[in-house]
Amino acid sequence: MRTGVQGPVDVRRRYMVHAGASAISAADVVAVEEPLKVRVDGETIAVTMRTPGEDRDLALGFLFAEGVIATVDDVGVVSHCGRPGDRNVIEVRSAPGTMLAPERVLEGRRWTTTTSACGVCGRRDIDALLARCGPVGVAGVVAADVVTDCVVRLRVLQRTFARTGGTHAAAAFTADGVLLASHEDVGRHNAVDKVVGALLRRRLVGRAAGSPGPFVLAVSGRASFEIVQKAAVARIPVVASVSAASSLAVDVASATGITLAAFVRGDRYNVYTHPERLAPAGAASLAQEA
Amino acid sequence: MRTGVQGPVDVRRRYMVHAGASAISAADVVAVEEPLKVRVDGETIAVTMRTPGEDRDLALGFLFAEGVIATVDDVGVVSHCGRPGDRNVIEVRSAPGTMLAPERVLEGRRWTTTTSACGVCGRRDIDALLARCGPVGVAGVVAADVVTDCVVRLRVLQRTFARTGGTHAAAAFTADGVLLASHEDVGRHNAVDKVVGALLRRRLVGRAAGSPGPFVLAVSGRASFEIVQKAAVARIPVVASVSAASSLAVDVASATGITLAAFVRGDRYNVYTHPERLAPAGAASLAQEA
Repeated sequence: MRTGVQGPVDVRRRYMVHAGASAISAADVVAVEEPLKVRVDGETIAVTMRTPGEDRDLALGFLFAEGVIATVDDVGVVSHCGRPGDRNVIEVRSAPGTMLAPERVLEGRRWTTTTSACGVCGRRDIDALLARCGPVGVAGVVAADVVTDCVVRLRVLQRTFARTGGTHAAAAFTADGVLLASHEDVGRHNAVDKVVGALLRRRLVGRAAGSPGPFVLAVSGRASFEIVQKAAVARIPVVASVSAASSLAVDVASATGITLAAFVRGDRYNVYTHPERLAPAGAASLAQEA
Repeated sequence: MRTGVQGPVDVRRRYMVHAGASAISAADVVAVEEPLKVRVDGETIAVTMRTPGEDRDLALGFLFAEGVIATVDDVGVVSHCGRPGDRNVIEVRSAPGTMLAPERVLEGRRWTTTTSACGVCGRRDIDALLARCGPVGVAGVVAADVVTDCVVRLRVLQRTFARTGGTHAAAAFTADGVLLASHEDVGRHNAVDKVVGALLRRRLVGRAAGSPGPFVLAVSGRASFEIVQKAAVARIPVVASVSAASSLAVDVASATGITLAAFVRGDRYNVYTHPERLAPAGAASLAQEA
């Protein structure tokens, strides 16, 4: 795979700072938001508003979450569009001997106009996810203080957030707290896709993934259905969120076997599902021995 | 229009609260996240993960933002699907003598598979938006302390957030600070759609909208492209965000004539675009006289 050009992650904008009756002119950076068009073998599959950077990981992680690719071996060249300066189109080619089926994305996104069947509910989304990837049966435990530490370190990793206040972040860690990948983006889901794409490229998720693999996915924003779904597909067994979890996030985590911790702040956290993976602070990690 | 059944906005879930070495079992409410399928004349247009409640306003606001409807008169019956207990499908019928063209949504969302043209950028999104709705030429000013007060009041209006910590909110106010509509949702964009849908239904946005109309859109989350776009289509001239603005939000606000204030906290705020609409604190509002 080769990468193409990439734009800046933040840009300067002028503005006025008001505080009570006083006002001063200022210029500081804001997080860049630009569309990225994802194409598979020439066909446009999705357009997402994202922060430029690690676009190929974003595309790989997205296609993996949607079930279009199962391993990095399914993919040939991943590159920005050939036209000069066109950094907002990424083209994913099938590997030789492989034919990717990107229509799954459209089904997954359900922007299809062909179905007229009535009825939709969260339970159905959970069942579809289970049918696709099965329960996350990853054994092992992680020390609770490793999990809380991952979230503390996530904040330190948010360099674009520190400058702009405008990005989310996600990071994957082993059960021993070793950082494997971290990314920032204006979109919560994009940050997770970038992390999973990076892990996929390094064969740490996906079919026949190596070890020590990712055990904790720390996210800066809320834990919604989509975030837990992406963790379930990548078989990352612990999701730790700084913020709240939604009902569907709790239910999908429960059904797929994900340990979901939310409101992780300092040494305090809530565990909504599968607490058996969290060992009391200081306990030895057994995760990679399972 | 008639409404159908609606589910709860929060539900109880059991969890463990950990703080250091101590752990106690608890049960509290989390924000509900459930899919909503939006159908137009029997055709599925979109599925969005949302918090149940005000689904018809969500559908109307979404279709308005996407350019499918221009006024509430374009719409006939808006109802939940007829099957008993199916509260997650909302059906929007064309008004007699009208034929809604929902394919615009799919174009707008750009999940189309037919185009193979290369090239996509934020500037193109801005141009497409301007071509569709033109600049927001709403005259008038609003006192700066009214804007900061709107954001303070938004927080008070976040009753589901107060219980769950898991929802975003949006609210529309007149230039005099009169609250017109406010809604919460797990999705930032859904909260705005619900507010605009409510205003559309009351003929306060859309073609030949009455007055005093909405002048300030306060949002609890970050100001992204999508939020400013929805304000531009609804011709709400001031967007005030508690959090950061993205580069594309600033650029689309600049191009469409939206006053964009971000990091509105207490009496402090940053104004990125069109500061001419903000009068010093205490100045008389001229907004509705223009």
